[in-house]
Amino acid sequence: MVGTDGGLMRFGPDRPLRLDSGASLSNLEIAYRTYGELNADRSNAVLICHALTLDQHVASTHPITGKPGWWPHVVGPGKPIDPERHFIISSNVVGGCMGTTGPSSTDPLTGKPYGLAFPVITIADMVRAQAMLVEALGVETLFAVVGGSMGGMQVLQWAADYPERLFSAVCIASAARHSAQNIAFHEVGRQAIMADPDWRGGDYAHQGVRPEKGLAVSRMAAHITYLSEAALQRKFGRELQRDGLSWGFDADFQVESYLRHQGATFVDRFDANSYLYITRAMDYFDLAAAHGGSLAKAFARASQVRFCILSFTSDWLYPTTESRAVVKALNAATARASFVEIESDKGHDAFLLDEPVMVRAIGGFLDAAGQARGLAA
Amino acid sequence: MVGTDGGLMRFGPDRPLRLDSGASLSNLEIAYRTYGELNADRSNAVLICHALTLDQHVASTHPITGKPGWWPHVVGPGKPIDPERHFIISSNVVGGCMGTTGPSSTDPLTGKPYGLAFPVITIADMVRAQAMLVEALGVETLFAVVGGSMGGMQVLQWAADYPERLFSAVCIASAARHSAQNIAFHEVGRQAIMADPDWRGGDYAHQGVRPEKGLAVSRMAAHITYLSEAALQRKFGRELQRDGLSWGFDADFQVESYLRHQGATFVDRFDANSYLYITRAMDYFDLAAAHGGSLAKAFARASQVRFCILSFTSDWLYPTTESRAVVKALNAATARASFVEIESDKGHDAFLLDEPVMVRAIGGFLDAAGQARGLAA
Repeated sequence: MVGTDGGLMRFGPDRPLRLDSGASLSNLEIAYRTYGELNADRSNAVLICHALTLDQHVASTHPITGKPGWWPHVVGPGKPIDPERHFIISSNVVGGCMGTTGPSSTDPLTGKPYGLAFPVITIADMVRAQAMLVEALGVETLFAVVGGSMGGMQVLQWAADYPERLFSAVCIASAARHSAQNIAFHEVGRQAIMADPDWRGGDYAHQGVRPEKGLAVSRMAAHITYLSEAALQRKFGRELQRDGLSWGFDADFQVESYLRHQGATFVDRFDANSYLYITRAMDYFDLAAAHGGSLAKAFARASQVRFCILSFTSDWLYPTTESRAVVKALNAATARASFVEIESDKGHDAFLLDEPVMVRAIGGFLDAAGQARGLAA
Repeated sequence: MVGTDGGLMRFGPDRPLRLDSGASLSNLEIAYRTYGELNADRSNAVLICHALTLDQHVASTHPITGKPGWWPHVVGPGKPIDPERHFIISSNVVGGCMGTTGPSSTDPLTGKPYGLAFPVITIADMVRAQAMLVEALGVETLFAVVGGSMGGMQVLQWAADYPERLFSAVCIASAARHSAQNIAFHEVGRQAIMADPDWRGGDYAHQGVRPEKGLAVSRMAAHITYLSEAALQRKFGRELQRDGLSWGFDADFQVESYLRHQGATFVDRFDANSYLYITRAMDYFDLAAAHGGSLAKAFARASQVRFCILSFTSDWLYPTTESRAVVKALNAATARASFVEIESDKGHDAFLLDEPVMVRAIGGFLDAAGQARGLAA
């Protein structure tokens, strides 16, 4: 039993989502957006996978912040992913807080929000849910699956788990596993949330409070990792908020004020438990480990998929070495992989910004793949 | 009025410490340790300046942790700084929590701990207090002032403010100013402390509580910056604590457990308000800005001082570019500067570890300086 209603796909108890943990989720709901129309051949569908704190509003106004879609340089009329040519699908991940079933959803067993009763999920679980959605939307084979950061992890997972349902794949500023440093930063964020007395062992929603201070500290720490040292220096340097120092603990430096603002606004649009679950999924991600330690084996069935792998020189969160490891494994699996390391001083966040080389690389790759697929230019 | 008593130097109300903020500290107490003897010429004194969370116990057992001194590879018999040849002085910085006057000291005005009534201090204030101590110990000219990280900032400040009282200076893994990224990480740490309800606006000591959770989160975030990505990967990689994943939020990965341990043990030996004040002093540090924007001008009077500047290839907290800027300014000021960038994958913490190239560089530099100073080898 499957039904869609205003961007919410509902799967009945006969269609549970089986999870890597061994648990399963009944009555799964997936919040999604589509842009453009599926063509007669059903050959023009593009799935966009979002990063840690993003959502399905890739090209539509965010209902809480009122901000435009999060990928304006890549998705839109005349852009590489174009609603006039493509049927664009974007869904909120399982575990998220923008409508898809997650820890703030109601647990049917108790009638109150799941909290920590929500099962731990993985990147593969997110992708399994997306596959159910894509199928429910009548799409057998995706023309492309595209994503940056955690979205790129989902792209790689799609290639490992559903290669026969993919024509092409674009993985940007990402990695096939989380490094010790990646895990360390996420653990700091989780500890900041769990240190907040308003977290209440994860039961805050039921108790009518929110661990906003802890979540804000998490966001501040994470945000530093999204920018390069050079970008921070260029944007803020040691510029002050006011004339002179406060000789106190106000935000003296512009970079302090910026980080505080990032923390303060984040808590309005994101759920603390979702942050715990999604960071956990990323930390658990290790595509090679799930294939006997061989990343090439993960891609063994993907030799017909066309891959585009992009990294940024100043991305220290998912550095180019991680993308190179993916390309090497794709080559070993005899898949078609094009790889570009893009010169940028903007750090990890470059994939969300106006990076013309990235936009041209995605556009060129998808145009060529579109020709091979027989799509109109 | 000055008196010393078991490693505590007391300055009377007639000898206040004038602070950069305009405030001053009366009844200053400086906790210090000395090792070795001052020679007849009073020419063999070495001042060691400590980093953010370290203290005067450079070569003696820490009274709280029971651990040996923090710089065993550099200080000790047969080491580059040797109590058999040098009169070694190390003091806890102003604002610290190991005996020197700081925010946990009793405010004479109120009779309770200062808390946030303690004035904001600077690196120059720390150095001014050290200069008072060194003078009180009967040392007119230091043979060497030596320090890593924040200790290196103090070394540079000594060279700017008291060059006539220095024969040589060793600055390791440090910088002449805090970058936007440095400030950003410190701000995250401060916000984590101030987000803890047990911080009580800084008044926790008076109220009989401690913001341990916030301070632990601070330490965890900072600790990541002390290690390189490669060091974290080599030490921990994705190794698990137990067989298999917990499918929960326990410490699954060894790196998580390590960070939690770092946070938990730190709160036993460090004061949260001291962490706020000392990080603030580091953020305020910008030696060039205090000299009309010219770092060379900061060293204008230091042309007779011999400098040794050391950096580590994998230190991303105070990268080599920062040390090079110092060397360039020293050259412009016609000071004698030797500079070595040491190949190491250990990150910022390398200066505290067994790095033979560093130990040889410090030893060789101090031996040559000792010969020039007429010290026995």
